[in-house]
Amino acid sequence: MHEPLPPGSVIGILGGGQLGRMLSVAAARLGYKTAIFEPGGDCPASHVANFHLQAGYEDEAALRRFAQGVDVITYEFENVPTSALDILETLRPIRPGREALRISQDRIVEKDFLSGLGLAVAPYRAVASEDDLRAALDGIGAPAILKTCRFGYDGKGQARITSPDDIPAAWAAMNGAASVLEGFVAFSHEVSVIAARGLDRSVAVFDPGENVHEGGILRSTTVPARLTAAQRGDAVLLAANILNALDYVGVLGVELFVTSRGLIVNEIAPRVHNSGHWTQQGCAVDQFEQHVRAIAGWVLGDGRRHADVVMENLIGDDMARLPDLARERDVAIHLYGKADVKPGRKMGHVNRITG
Amino acid sequence: MHEPLPPGSVIGILGGGQLGRMLSVAAARLGYKTAIFEPGGDCPASHVANFHLQAGYEDEAALRRFAQGVDVITYEFENVPTSALDILETLRPIRPGREALRISQDRIVEKDFLSGLGLAVAPYRAVASEDDLRAALDGIGAPAILKTCRFGYDGKGQARITSPDDIPAAWAAMNGAASVLEGFVAFSHEVSVIAARGLDRSVAVFDPGENVHEGGILRSTTVPARLTAAQRGDAVLLAANILNALDYVGVLGVELFVTSRGLIVNEIAPRVHNSGHWTQQGCAVDQFEQHVRAIAGWVLGDGRRHADVVMENLIGDDMARLPDLARERDVAIHLYGKADVKPGRKMGHVNRITG
Repeated sequence: MHEPLPPGSVIGILGGGQLGRMLSVAAARLGYKTAIFEPGGDCPASHVANFHLQAGYEDEAALRRFAQGVDVITYEFENVPTSALDILETLRPIRPGREALRISQDRIVEKDFLSGLGLAVAPYRAVASEDDLRAALDGIGAPAILKTCRFGYDGKGQARITSPDDIPAAWAAMNGAASVLEGFVAFSHEVSVIAARGLDRSVAVFDPGENVHEGGILRSTTVPARLTAAQRGDAVLLAANILNALDYVGVLGVELFVTSRGLIVNEIAPRVHNSGHWTQQGCAVDQFEQHVRAIAGWVLGDGRRHADVVMENLIGDDMARLPDLARERDVAIHLYGKADVKPGRKMGHVNRITG
Repeated sequence: MHEPLPPGSVIGILGGGQLGRMLSVAAARLGYKTAIFEPGGDCPASHVANFHLQAGYEDEAALRRFAQGVDVITYEFENVPTSALDILETLRPIRPGREALRISQDRIVEKDFLSGLGLAVAPYRAVASEDDLRAALDGIGAPAILKTCRFGYDGKGQARITSPDDIPAAWAAMNGAASVLEGFVAFSHEVSVIAARGLDRSVAVFDPGENVHEGGILRSTTVPARLTAAQRGDAVLLAANILNALDYVGVLGVELFVTSRGLIVNEIAPRVHNSGHWTQQGCAVDQFEQHVRAIAGWVLGDGRRHADVVMENLIGDDMARLPDLARERDVAIHLYGKADVKPGRKMGHVNRITG
């Protein structure tokens, strides 16, 4: 049995971007306060949080002060430096736990973990040099994609390889970082599953969403996704499998390729996920509240979808479409409060209720 | 034509309770920052706002500092002292405007205003003494209800009169304050309309909700309300009538009695209203965002209801029901972050999606 964190407890969030912002609002809805640890000033999460500790992840004193002011620590991004976690974990519980971070911080470790669970992943090979890359491409075959093992997001740290001629440029693009070559998967479409596991070990899974990417950045998520009943069942089971294997507490995002031979896991993210934003308009308990419920020891929400939704990201100049979007029916607008519009920058999203 | 306030502008909110809290979250969702003016520390709105200026309404320097730090001023309660408004209005626009406050701050002025628009209200008489009360009761007849003209809320400042014997006690309960005697209305049920008017003078009205009160405090609001199509039309038209007469900008709540002879206006509130909380789960644009849209010069949201909802307040010890509520399907929980549970205190609400 777990008593939930009492009302007024403080949830510490590492990272002050839009995910931290929406987590803060959800925490407030459940009666909690929030403290944000974020090096940047005027960050999106700070606008809706009780406290913002502006300091770098190498600032040990700040990390200690932060931990001492909160009751539980969570994060909005998986690349939290290990040295910071080493300090924080001695002071307060970190949820989801470090094993999830260790695995998701490195693409090869992650793929080994997923394969070890018996889940299908794209063919992959570790690459530490141009020679490695050549050998890996021989084994996997073109086309393939080279990715840095760590710190990649929104298509960054990636290079496509369509023939051996691309090898030198692709390897150069990695800047010498440990990388992984992944074979292309012939998939019809991509879906993701947003799943949660509570302190009581119960699991709740949101309806899978169908994702469209453009330039490596998520463009839209549509629920319901095009999936057979069997595929839907597989998606739920594999997500639960991952959560249990990690003894996970919180929300996890799992990206899946849909192929004629079944679902293939693309990657996992140990946090709330852009492809789960539709839950804000589609469910009584959205992914942000579900995460807060999990890490605060509440019972999980059931996650049932009561509406069809299309989530669309507002990226860079999409902000110019706001006046039109504001006029549309059944469109919920969510802006992130970022000061500057930049190309490729996620400025907000809209959830369109379609049924 | 009105250009909306640019992203990153600061919305100043007078009052730091739960309405200010939910307005802050809505403002953030539209890319704005918020500043709260509230004498109390650790107030619900401050948990999700950028700034909290903790000062009293008699602190002129604080009021000036507040106004200079914001782009537009709104409020979450109608009893903002006139002296404070006199200072603030010289510095920044106050929306809704002062006329709405002047009228809603005094029950007699409000009833005169509504009657002047040709709207039906309960019979009423001004009462300034026990003799006045006796004469008023003679004219209106028992049962009736005596209310202070100003500063009443949640059933406070009210006394029921069922016979002339009740007169001394009822008058004593007013503590000498200017009061109004209202005749009882034989109504079948009570509904309220949450309506909005934009800077462009457009009007949008949410579907009326049906209210149940207990001990003078709102217990629940159900949408759709039991209303004929004609009553529904009347409700929308009279709300628009009030908004236009006040040249209003923002969200207004109108409480109505449903009777066999038509709708009778109980009272109006120049702000977001407890009976509009259902819109958080029932509409793509809820009453809080609608208010922010209006005062920030956005186009209004259409307010269409996409779900049936029952809103139930969590009052005092209702908080003990949280573990059960958290387990229910299709129930969205909204807590206000108040430190202490007190009898009669609104601690939160739940929105139950019923269809």
